[in-house]
Amino acid sequence: MADVEVLIPQDVEQESPGKVAQVDERIRVHVVEEDGTNTATAPRALLLGGLSGEATRRVLGEHPSVEWVHSFAAGVEHLPPRLGDYKGLVTNSAGVHGEPIAEWVIMMLLAHSKQLPRLLEHHRSQEWESERGEELGGKTLGIVGAGGIGGAIARRARGLDIEVIGTRTSGEPTEHIATMYTPDQLHEMLPDCDFVVIATPLTSQTTGLIGEPELRVMRDSAAILNIARGKVIQTDALLRALTEGWIAGAYLDVTDPEPLPADHPLWTAPGAIITAHTSGHSPRSTGRVIDFFCQNLRLWLDSAPLQNVVDREREY
Amino acid sequence: MADVEVLIPQDVEQESPGKVAQVDERIRVHVVEEDGTNTATAPRALLLGGLSGEATRRVLGEHPSVEWVHSFAAGVEHLPPRLGDYKGLVTNSAGVHGEPIAEWVIMMLLAHSKQLPRLLEHHRSQEWESERGEELGGKTLGIVGAGGIGGAIARRARGLDIEVIGTRTSGEPTEHIATMYTPDQLHEMLPDCDFVVIATPLTSQTTGLIGEPELRVMRDSAAILNIARGKVIQTDALLRALTEGWIAGAYLDVTDPEPLPADHPLWTAPGAIITAHTSGHSPRSTGRVIDFFCQNLRLWLDSAPLQNVVDREREY
Repeated sequence: MADVEVLIPQDVEQESPGKVAQVDERIRVHVVEEDGTNTATAPRALLLGGLSGEATRRVLGEHPSVEWVHSFAAGVEHLPPRLGDYKGLVTNSAGVHGEPIAEWVIMMLLAHSKQLPRLLEHHRSQEWESERGEELGGKTLGIVGAGGIGGAIARRARGLDIEVIGTRTSGEPTEHIATMYTPDQLHEMLPDCDFVVIATPLTSQTTGLIGEPELRVMRDSAAILNIARGKVIQTDALLRALTEGWIAGAYLDVTDPEPLPADHPLWTAPGAIITAHTSGHSPRSTGRVIDFFCQNLRLWLDSAPLQNVVDREREY
Repeated sequence: MADVEVLIPQDVEQESPGKVAQVDERIRVHVVEEDGTNTATAPRALLLGGLSGEATRRVLGEHPSVEWVHSFAAGVEHLPPRLGDYKGLVTNSAGVHGEPIAEWVIMMLLAHSKQLPRLLEHHRSQEWESERGEELGGKTLGIVGAGGIGGAIARRARGLDIEVIGTRTSGEPTEHIATMYTPDQLHEMLPDCDFVVIATPLTSQTTGLIGEPELRVMRDSAAILNIARGKVIQTDALLRALTEGWIAGAYLDVTDPEPLPADHPLWTAPGAIITAHTSGHSPRSTGRVIDFFCQNLRLWLDSAPLQNVVDREREY
């Protein structure tokens, strides 16, 4: 059988050299340099990781033979302009980054409950002062868009005796979330939550999903967390919610706009804690994406259905 | 059967009025005011919570009829001088405060792995900057003195995919800790740990347990956490360990001396994060102690063996 050329970004291939080539003896790996330069003649698959839009379009324009593109990211809302005229198969890495993101969420739930930012201020001031912390166990966490990452969060949360509820398209319960709502029941779920974590992909359905009505039905003691995409929450409404005390906190790893400009009022909004789209970072991420890609590559060579095929109708 | 007078501090009784009286119709609750004033005539039990040493000695001196003292705290190393000549039965609240303490430990493990203190600094500086965080999952946590609190920590840690090992007097594995060492095997365990949490009672055996030899066999990437008593760790050795980089961090809810004076060098030691003996604080603590005391009271009225009897030989 003929060779199968696969394009892989140089830095990704350097992380686990030869791993993709080992999937099958037909595989010929060609690395893609930062500007898109590569030595392939008729590549059929492209693993996208860290390539600029310009380089990606160059590679795809140069190689109409590419029939499968795999994205390093979970969300692919940024992808269409980068793909230019490419209309072939796209898979994403949804769920692959769930472990570090779920840990970030649990960390922030604990930090909120125990007022860690204030405890650290006392430390910096060298003051032997405590704070009236609460217990996280027994609180209720609502996951908006409970998919792969939501499941990773829910499993850890339950290990900490947190009650977990959620919304997902089907409304069907999952292994770790017994009480599940459909997206149009969001307003029924929100008032029951001590914490609401946004874990939904950004689509035309979810853009601006959390606005004034949603923030107003939340408890004034509740905190919202966003590890999905900044545009799922309406920034202006969130600013008012924090300033006027509709809710008690916002832990944001993603913002709109992003990066958040140094003079943006969200930085200093009461109860806001912002990190720079870092929750999914892990020394293990690249290795996990490569492993996932290799599994999909095996399926693809066997003409079996792939995992995480992006549905252009659903936009994820 | 005769009435049984039980002495309860005023603020404890206010938290759950009548709860102790409901254990049995023979129970007559007498509240103890802050200075020790009470209306009992021949009380047989005393629940100690928040009473000063002076008030405690006054109550016990006034009522030689007391035959059982229950301590609100888990550790009772401070108790003997407060009890004066009292030589009767003492029980403690070991394990009762495990839930919030275990949450504090998990919070600090995550904060260390993801460099939360630095992420919060970026937030304060309004900088969109990330840090190379690590994943907590897959790390190894060693619990020195794995009793009730250690079990509460271990259960949560395993839910976060942390490997948990420990030491305890018997060396026997527990439900959540498959690999258990005896105390004299401490030096075998320490080099395997990414994190070491001190959860042992303070006794003559454990005073100064962690000194230069122990800190030197730990990994230079490891962090130590102390939620037990400050004197289990030799402060001078810990200071050198942090300053000279034998270990990477110390998360201390207890210190020696305590409170830590504002000018103590431990505040500014590299990698040290100090909280003011606050990890066990929870709005639920008093309720839990009362519930535990009520269970023990039921056993005591039935002349059954009590839970958490303090062994004056073992000192806990």
